[in-house]
Amino acid sequence: MTQPSRRDFMVGAAGAASVFATSGVLGAAGSKPLGVALCGLGSLSTDQIAPALQKTELCKLTGIVTGSPEKAKKWQAKYNIPAKNVYDYQSMERMADNPDIDMVYVVTPNALHADHTIKSARAGKHVFCEKPMEISVERCQQMIDACKSAGKKLGIAYRCQFEPHHLELIRLAREREFGDVKVIEASFGFTSSDPKVWRLRRALAGGGALMDVGVYALQAARYISGEEPIALSAIEVKTDPVMFREVDESIAWQMRFPSGRLATCSTTYNANGMGRIRAHAQRGWFELDPAFNYTGIRGRRSDGKAISFPATDHFAVELDTFARSILDDQPFRASGEEGLRDVSIMMSIYEAARTGRAIKRS
Amino acid sequence: MTQPSRRDFMVGAAGAASVFATSGVLGAAGSKPLGVALCGLGSLSTDQIAPALQKTELCKLTGIVTGSPEKAKKWQAKYNIPAKNVYDYQSMERMADNPDIDMVYVVTPNALHADHTIKSARAGKHVFCEKPMEISVERCQQMIDACKSAGKKLGIAYRCQFEPHHLELIRLAREREFGDVKVIEASFGFTSSDPKVWRLRRALAGGGALMDVGVYALQAARYISGEEPIALSAIEVKTDPVMFREVDESIAWQMRFPSGRLATCSTTYNANGMGRIRAHAQRGWFELDPAFNYTGIRGRRSDGKAISFPATDHFAVELDTFARSILDDQPFRASGEEGLRDVSIMMSIYEAARTGRAIKRS
Repeated sequence: MTQPSRRDFMVGAAGAASVFATSGVLGAAGSKPLGVALCGLGSLSTDQIAPALQKTELCKLTGIVTGSPEKAKKWQAKYNIPAKNVYDYQSMERMADNPDIDMVYVVTPNALHADHTIKSARAGKHVFCEKPMEISVERCQQMIDACKSAGKKLGIAYRCQFEPHHLELIRLAREREFGDVKVIEASFGFTSSDPKVWRLRRALAGGGALMDVGVYALQAARYISGEEPIALSAIEVKTDPVMFREVDESIAWQMRFPSGRLATCSTTYNANGMGRIRAHAQRGWFELDPAFNYTGIRGRRSDGKAISFPATDHFAVELDTFARSILDDQPFRASGEEGLRDVSIMMSIYEAARTGRAIKRS
Repeated sequence: MTQPSRRDFMVGAAGAASVFATSGVLGAAGSKPLGVALCGLGSLSTDQIAPALQKTELCKLTGIVTGSPEKAKKWQAKYNIPAKNVYDYQSMERMADNPDIDMVYVVTPNALHADHTIKSARAGKHVFCEKPMEISVERCQQMIDACKSAGKKLGIAYRCQFEPHHLELIRLAREREFGDVKVIEASFGFTSSDPKVWRLRRALAGGGALMDVGVYALQAARYISGEEPIALSAIEVKTDPVMFREVDESIAWQMRFPSGRLATCSTTYNANGMGRIRAHAQRGWFELDPAFNYTGIRGRRSDGKAISFPATDHFAVELDTFARSILDDQPFRASGEEGLRDVSIMMSIYEAARTGRAIKRS
């Protein structure tokens, strides 16, 4: 049995299902799509984001930022990108005078997000940034400040915040359809089998499973409870200290919220197919399982009803929603502040795991 | 929507399914069944254990211990129990001279288990005792010592240790069918809606959700990992401090095992239908959901296969297995030492929740 790749696990069993954007974010017709420069052309950009940008209504792939001339050539040909819209990481601030580019989508390794976000903001571009936002709270704050100074919007690519199954979980919680939610279980992990990926290098990733995929479980606990944790505890383990020398392999953590809700979460780089949310309320439960894959999300409720919505392209929907917020100058839900909050909580989770002490947060 | 009772939740959706004992523990035919006195005639004895004793092959309900003359009369009539086999809690040591009774099944409130176990052992009877074993490690040790002194066996009613779906989870873990198990998620809880039950009184119960049903999640993490936790952390919350004034309402806890396996567990008296185990291994997962109900246990694996076995009467199987160990003078898996271990770990969980510190265990 071969180890599935990161891509396999994300696409999941329903990878072949038809996938289409159902953003529904277009207001009155006729907005000119915003030009998007993709910054960082790794597998996420190649396999998910560039295809999604062919389906967006309010965004259009018009530029690229890459350190690889070969990749540049390939992408130019494939997506009809003119040479004047191709940048590398040194030249990217020159996009200031390029009206084809309204927004930069930063898809580089975590520890480069601040640099590339700040350069983009200084060039007068809105910034959409992959999760986790950065590897420290300080850097997240610098990103927020840079975008604010430039008068540009900053969004974090929390695709699940715009995904209908996840939105239904939030609705069920808010409307107390099964009574008050008391305990939230959330976990996300997979087997990281390629020792060469940047995600295993602390300097580039900042952390391991927690920052990469655990953040989805953290997000879920936060948006289902609608609250910020006031206390948390955590335990970390490494069963493969060679592969996971620099970053965390597996972490379990718990959070207490002001209402008294509890969340119990886990993440790992060493178990395949982990990815689930279940919210336990007074009169029953509701869940997504799998919860976080790009396709094939399935939901159930304790009363036997399914939670089922047409598939969406998560990337197309979040991009169109961000574009809509730019065009209407309205707040974007997955803001820089939202990204910073998660990084701050993840730092507390690492501290709790390191010290063996529950961390109180205000 | 009415609040389901404890009984409803335990019976679950498959309550009407046919239930039969498949103990398979009978050796050569012809053993005379062991006489069992039921000590404590509450709803568990009435609804589950007495009916189960009509299906056992190696046990037979021959006596009762109760403080209620009305109950005694009813049970005598229903189960054809002669007056000489009826005791109350003061007279129960007199069963020493009663050859109809080989074993006492203690089904009284947690904090009375030691007293009733010790009295039974002194009367020269084997003891089968409901979980949790007692409310302190010291009392568990006294129970073990009393049975050892009397040369009698002591078993704890961990019904899931003899249930085929749970045994299959253990097999999948041991045989590494999906690779090594890395993370175990286990939770068990329900909505406790009757404020008058002894389970909410600290003096009788010792603790709340953790000791009553959380112990199942703890057991699952222990028998699936096959290890004892070396570190744990915990967070406790009360959202209804009136109902749960004396005992814990909801606790989430995590455990680290020597191999590096992690378990993340939760329990509650304030959310209905919580009861699940999922083991995440390197190449996939396997789960029971619901995991702990008396009937209707359902299992799945990440490869799409079901984990499915004919229904058993959990009580009949555990009783016949205990009887077999008595008849053959062989060790019983769910021993007093096993029960003490869980009580000891639960005391650490309470300590971790109270102090906000991870507790190391050796």
